[in-house]
Amino acid sequence: MASIMVSSSSGVCWSIFNQIPNSIHSFVKPCHFTSKSQEHRSACLCLKSTKAVVSEQNQKYSKIGALSIGPISSAQLLQSVEFAAKTGAQVVMEAVNKPRNISYKGLTDLVTDTDKMSEAAILSVVRKNFPDHLILGEEGGVIGDSSSDYLWCIDPLDGTTNFAHGYPSFAVSVGVLYRGKPAAAAVVEFVGGAMCWNTRTFSAVAGGGSFCNGQRIHVSQTDNVERALLVTGFGYEHDDPWATNMNLFKEFTDISRGVRRLGAAAVDMCHVALGIVEAYWEYRLKPWDMAAGVLIVEEAGGAVSCMDGGKFTVFDRSLLVSNGVLHSKLLERIGPATEELKGKGIDFSLWYKPDDYNTDL
Amino acid sequence: MASIMVSSSSGVCWSIFNQIPNSIHSFVKPCHFTSKSQEHRSACLCLKSTKAVVSEQNQKYSKIGALSIGPISSAQLLQSVEFAAKTGAQVVMEAVNKPRNISYKGLTDLVTDTDKMSEAAILSVVRKNFPDHLILGEEGGVIGDSSSDYLWCIDPLDGTTNFAHGYPSFAVSVGVLYRGKPAAAAVVEFVGGAMCWNTRTFSAVAGGGSFCNGQRIHVSQTDNVERALLVTGFGYEHDDPWATNMNLFKEFTDISRGVRRLGAAAVDMCHVALGIVEAYWEYRLKPWDMAAGVLIVEEAGGAVSCMDGGKFTVFDRSLLVSNGVLHSKLLERIGPATEELKGKGIDFSLWYKPDDYNTDL
Repeated sequence: MASIMVSSSSGVCWSIFNQIPNSIHSFVKPCHFTSKSQEHRSACLCLKSTKAVVSEQNQKYSKIGALSIGPISSAQLLQSVEFAAKTGAQVVMEAVNKPRNISYKGLTDLVTDTDKMSEAAILSVVRKNFPDHLILGEEGGVIGDSSSDYLWCIDPLDGTTNFAHGYPSFAVSVGVLYRGKPAAAAVVEFVGGAMCWNTRTFSAVAGGGSFCNGQRIHVSQTDNVERALLVTGFGYEHDDPWATNMNLFKEFTDISRGVRRLGAAAVDMCHVALGIVEAYWEYRLKPWDMAAGVLIVEEAGGAVSCMDGGKFTVFDRSLLVSNGVLHSKLLERIGPATEELKGKGIDFSLWYKPDDYNTDL
Repeated sequence: MASIMVSSSSGVCWSIFNQIPNSIHSFVKPCHFTSKSQEHRSACLCLKSTKAVVSEQNQKYSKIGALSIGPISSAQLLQSVEFAAKTGAQVVMEAVNKPRNISYKGLTDLVTDTDKMSEAAILSVVRKNFPDHLILGEEGGVIGDSSSDYLWCIDPLDGTTNFAHGYPSFAVSVGVLYRGKPAAAAVVEFVGGAMCWNTRTFSAVAGGGSFCNGQRIHVSQTDNVERALLVTGFGYEHDDPWATNMNLFKEFTDISRGVRRLGAAAVDMCHVALGIVEAYWEYRLKPWDMAAGVLIVEEAGGAVSCMDGGKFTVFDRSLLVSNGVLHSKLLERIGPATEELKGKGIDFSLWYKPDDYNTDL
């Protein structure tokens, strides 16, 4: 997707969002692309040809993407999820340099007006297009029909602390599950900062590959931890898993090229998919943090598991994504640390799954 | 400074550098601005009016900027240092999406062809304009006349690991000292990443304020650690100071809104100056890492000291920069940790100062 940049007299650059009409209520037209690259279009319509992206190496970790995405076409689902994420991102972009009223959920958990407005805008789009789908939003909880096979997981502003400080990166993340498994995903990342805000859009559909601004992306091929650049996150709750991850941060900083701490889970996962970092892990994420990013990593050729190496679902309480070839080597340290937490009685059962939601898990 | 963005057919955005002629050998004309904002111009010519930027709170920490910048005018020195940094940045921008030949200084210390080419380009500019000045470059060591009062400290690519991975941010950093104290500074930060690379330029002259893309910038006013977003760095040597900083990372992650780990010292300091993080600290930096950033922070209203709270010079082995109002509170933890290292016999004497270089330190 080509983007156009304009520069205001103050030197602030703004991204012009393609494909987003003025009204967030505009209906998404089904099943045809208007501004995707040819590669993107082909990939979405020829699913079989791209499945080889996931290397044999990764096959030892269960695929997390949906094998079937149900009666909605890949093209429509991908376009819908991108449109939803970009609609939220438009709200965020309008607010990015304005003063904001910050309230608190916890000591360090910021919830901004923008967060709420972004979710409302995304919900409006999803409900208009798919009134019978189930929706799980960070701010609004579960709404919709729990008998639906589709569950939308919406993080209207991933990285709220960064947003509150004007520190890149943060993102809007929208993932849609079919019977519990990621079917389509879009993440709009905000990059740059004051004087040069910009966005890039990551997207994926199960079996159709991953894209950044319409260009196919792939994980890195780095097979050596010493040559790996890694990234992790620390949640708001400073409990045993938090302390364990502090140790992992130290250990991997010692043996790798470095561990970055950027502060937005969806962004970190997209960076793995883009091949600029080799892996990302974190305890205690929520479905709306993970639903989009994990599919984008897997469709870029990476591997996804829980931090004990077990099969991952978006309802789980730990996550490791990597370029695939490094997954087992990273689990040599991350796995035992996680088993130790289990031994202490730390809860790693499914965090949450909407009642009556039918899954193939 | 207004910037113009263009979008290639591949979706990759490139920044068009203003003020950089095609030849890096072009001579910098003295003492007039061609594309700065009126505010910038006024600030540089009316030094007294801007000195109030540094709050009384900060006065307890010695000023690190030069009181006199010698016979060269503020305007000329600022223009020259910006031109030098942008010349290096032009080399980096040309290479940012190309495959690169990576060699090793140490296990995780990457030195790229770009690093060397950027330094050569900057050296060429400085030597042509000021043939009698002393220069300290990360790659080339000391060259020039050691009897000069001016010492240029050049980091042609700060954040080489990030650059090697295509992970933002990294920067070109150029600081010029007058008799050992920072007189003028420029940092060109690379932001965004694949599909949306961009730059922003931070600059400062002693007594003249700090700027980002020509707009005056200021540190934040946050006076509470619990509401602070912080950033630190970990060097290549994994010794006692490294382990001490791991503990500080954990402690401050526990009590603040978070500690970021981005991987480029000059960038981290500019982010303090911009007010998007409240403080940054690191052991074992080198003069070329610090010379520009510390002045940009101080001129944005922040405070600069060693990590024991003592008076800082760019030849020191530890650095804490903050928004000023938080400096003492941060030192309540960082100071004792550093004193403990001293007690263990860790060397905190001046790392290096060119022989015969005359200073007012």
